[in-house]
Amino acid sequence: MGTDQNLKNLHEATMEVIETSGVRLHHDRLLEIAQSKGIKVKDKKVFFTREQLMEWVGKAPCEFKIFARNPANDMTVGGDHIEHVSYNSGFPYIADMEGTRRMALFSDYMNFVKLVHTTPFFNINCGVMVTPDDIPNDDNLYPRMLYATLLHSDKCMFGGMGGKTESQVTMEMLKIMFDTDKEGLIKKPRIINLVSSLSPLQFDEKMLDTLLVYVEHGQPVIIAPAVMAGSTGPMTMAGAIVISNAESLVGVAITQLVRPGTPVVYGSATANTDMKSGAFTIGTPESALAVKYCARLAKMYGVPCRGGGTLNDAKNLSVQAGYESMMVQFVANQEKINFNFHSAGGLDSYGSMSYEKFVTDLDILGRIKYYLNDLNTDTDHLAVDVINQVGVGGEYITNMHTAMNCRKTPFLSDISVQGPAKAGTTANEALVQKMHKKLDAMYSAYKQPEIDRAVVEKLDAFMQSIDVDLDQLKEKISS
Amino acid sequence: MGTDQNLKNLHEATMEVIETSGVRLHHDRLLEIAQSKGIKVKDKKVFFTREQLMEWVGKAPCEFKIFARNPANDMTVGGDHIEHVSYNSGFPYIADMEGTRRMALFSDYMNFVKLVHTTPFFNINCGVMVTPDDIPNDDNLYPRMLYATLLHSDKCMFGGMGGKTESQVTMEMLKIMFDTDKEGLIKKPRIINLVSSLSPLQFDEKMLDTLLVYVEHGQPVIIAPAVMAGSTGPMTMAGAIVISNAESLVGVAITQLVRPGTPVVYGSATANTDMKSGAFTIGTPESALAVKYCARLAKMYGVPCRGGGTLNDAKNLSVQAGYESMMVQFVANQEKINFNFHSAGGLDSYGSMSYEKFVTDLDILGRIKYYLNDLNTDTDHLAVDVINQVGVGGEYITNMHTAMNCRKTPFLSDISVQGPAKAGTTANEALVQKMHKKLDAMYSAYKQPEIDRAVVEKLDAFMQSIDVDLDQLKEKISS
Repeated sequence: MGTDQNLKNLHEATMEVIETSGVRLHHDRLLEIAQSKGIKVKDKKVFFTREQLMEWVGKAPCEFKIFARNPANDMTVGGDHIEHVSYNSGFPYIADMEGTRRMALFSDYMNFVKLVHTTPFFNINCGVMVTPDDIPNDDNLYPRMLYATLLHSDKCMFGGMGGKTESQVTMEMLKIMFDTDKEGLIKKPRIINLVSSLSPLQFDEKMLDTLLVYVEHGQPVIIAPAVMAGSTGPMTMAGAIVISNAESLVGVAITQLVRPGTPVVYGSATANTDMKSGAFTIGTPESALAVKYCARLAKMYGVPCRGGGTLNDAKNLSVQAGYESMMVQFVANQEKINFNFHSAGGLDSYGSMSYEKFVTDLDILGRIKYYLNDLNTDTDHLAVDVINQVGVGGEYITNMHTAMNCRKTPFLSDISVQGPAKAGTTANEALVQKMHKKLDAMYSAYKQPEIDRAVVEKLDAFMQSIDVDLDQLKEKISS
Repeated sequence: MGTDQNLKNLHEATMEVIETSGVRLHHDRLLEIAQSKGIKVKDKKVFFTREQLMEWVGKAPCEFKIFARNPANDMTVGGDHIEHVSYNSGFPYIADMEGTRRMALFSDYMNFVKLVHTTPFFNINCGVMVTPDDIPNDDNLYPRMLYATLLHSDKCMFGGMGGKTESQVTMEMLKIMFDTDKEGLIKKPRIINLVSSLSPLQFDEKMLDTLLVYVEHGQPVIIAPAVMAGSTGPMTMAGAIVISNAESLVGVAITQLVRPGTPVVYGSATANTDMKSGAFTIGTPESALAVKYCARLAKMYGVPCRGGGTLNDAKNLSVQAGYESMMVQFVANQEKINFNFHSAGGLDSYGSMSYEKFVTDLDILGRIKYYLNDLNTDTDHLAVDVINQVGVGGEYITNMHTAMNCRKTPFLSDISVQGPAKAGTTANEALVQKMHKKLDAMYSAYKQPEIDRAVVEKLDAFMQSIDVDLDQLKEKISS
């Protein structure tokens, strides 16, 4: 049928679903706002007409910025820009090379904060990269992480699990950190967070609370359906994408009802269900197709898009982790997904985090970037004079042109093992050694950015005001 | 600069090199033929003008067929057709999951013949998939393999190591097998083989002998430069591609000088050198770029193209094997490489063959094909009625539409482990079990195609006439 016809079919089908079934919002205030703007509301469901929907979606900016403490780490989200984010799904586990899992600790969280801070691939830090098992899992779980990250990284920030209290606390912390108020935050967004849907065709109260607090403060949100074809959506991917598209569009429109022009991202983590186990499988070719159509649809609607990532269902860092992660991420970058979520570290669908996978994924990102940068065919790279000078049957190893370019032009992998095997080392050992060497190099390169003592004192006071045990937290941070 | 401008730059640079440096042919007869057609010859080098080159390249067909014993396995090479071929580089080793290598045996060769015969991904069998260590490595090495393959597979055939004697023997065997003569072979090509260059800018006598015998019999050849950026070509990939392009174009032109209109494939296995070890690295993003430009250049010149493959440099079936293989093969299929060489089984650059990699690569091919087939958005797949009937907050697991589609529409992987881990099995064991289960299923599914006894007797007599110990060979075949 061709991709263009598919886009038209998906759009038409989505409009029909939105007009017929509507989308339920478990949130009285947002239903009131919708009704006040002339949107039909019935049974807690909003029924946008297609004209209304396109009008409100059209108010969303096609590109926006998120500001980091260090302006070198500011992000532009939208257009042809590509930003990457660590895996960020609240994994409770750390998996080792064999896939054996242990509970994640706060020290693991801090490790990932430092790794994310160190890599040039990410301009954004924080979020629930792992759920530490050794701090209380209460309303302050995420604020503790945000506190630790603000002190250890000057990149943009990613939000937490959401909900009204957490989101409000988040805004207060950002005001203190950046010595500003609500208006200041609106002018310079500092954080972005997910608003997941409750598929099919619903948003729960917690997520809509998150949306409301973020949007009122001008902080961008990502509308994030994760329709599972076969369980929360039709078995056929086109149908699952229709539901995903309906939820994303309505979510985007709602942000604009609250504050027209507010930055928002059209997202999709839609993929399929393994019908044997009911598991959410994300490393499949269907997942790659969903990523492609997320990008194409969002660009058709003129809104920035979010998709994954080095997605995979492998239980350990196996060949499966390699081919699945490469496929989905390659498609995401090629299709210019603007906000590439889950780009490093995850294994086993959304099950566990792996240090070795983290650095492997950075290598994958580097490869894809190198390829998509395309060939350089300037005069020096074409090297016609060199070729004619070396001539028929000559060699290039000792040529000056080779010496001048051998460190500059190739992709130099930190992970892949190339050339003859090292004596006394198995193939797997050689590979894992490179991963650990890379991790060590990143920890060594990490430097805590300087921070104003007065700001820290104000943050400390705030943390105490929300009943965070600061001594315990500081101990965890430095453990 | 953009891909289109890159293609123009590469073409211009190539013409300059061909006109200035020429290409050396270590083959008196071909030099004579070239001179007789008005091509300037000096120092055993041919100097095509760009007009001459484009004229002769233009005589090559943009698409041709190779005929199998079973017409269901006929191949079309060129246009938008995509054909896959097993790894086929004369690997001396078989690698196990840990990357430990042992010498390949004739029984391994027969295993791969059966696997290739069984998979629907390949329409072509034979070739030097491994170099068996337990039969004499003489002029009859390949004829023994061809004999065994003709008896065990009715797919198209791939050639051997080349050279005059081997190629002539090959033609005789095909005449017997298909009860035909030279004219009959010209009408219905049965085999295809590689003509490798001796980079930079040369072809050796053995390869040109192969070219001559094949072309005189109307059997297609693949002009197959494998320029190593940094050793047999400039460090910069654009320069390496210029040499590769020059060699491929001149090779294609030479086939047309011998027999205008003869089927030929523009090839490239160009990639880069690991400058630390001097090894040929083929799983790199540079390798993927070379594949892309091979396809684009060949299509610009109107000739079918050949590129890899599930190329990788991993020493064992590790995560590296996964991400490298997926990247190069994905690019190859997306760019519509017509003849995808090295699409299953190889590890460690061109170093070893792996059974587990073979079935893993078939899974990779399946994933890419599923993705590139694009989304089906017909009415049943869009499922608007189902979505509106299930409605807001419903579930799809028990829906009839799910039951009707759950075996039909998803990509069902033979290899990837999905869902919860099996008790009592490590993650790696679960994965390897699936690979071995797939291998077992393929061996079980293998059925030797029927063959005319009279033909076998004639083949037997021919094998004895070239001094093949037929009893020994038959023992090896059935061992």
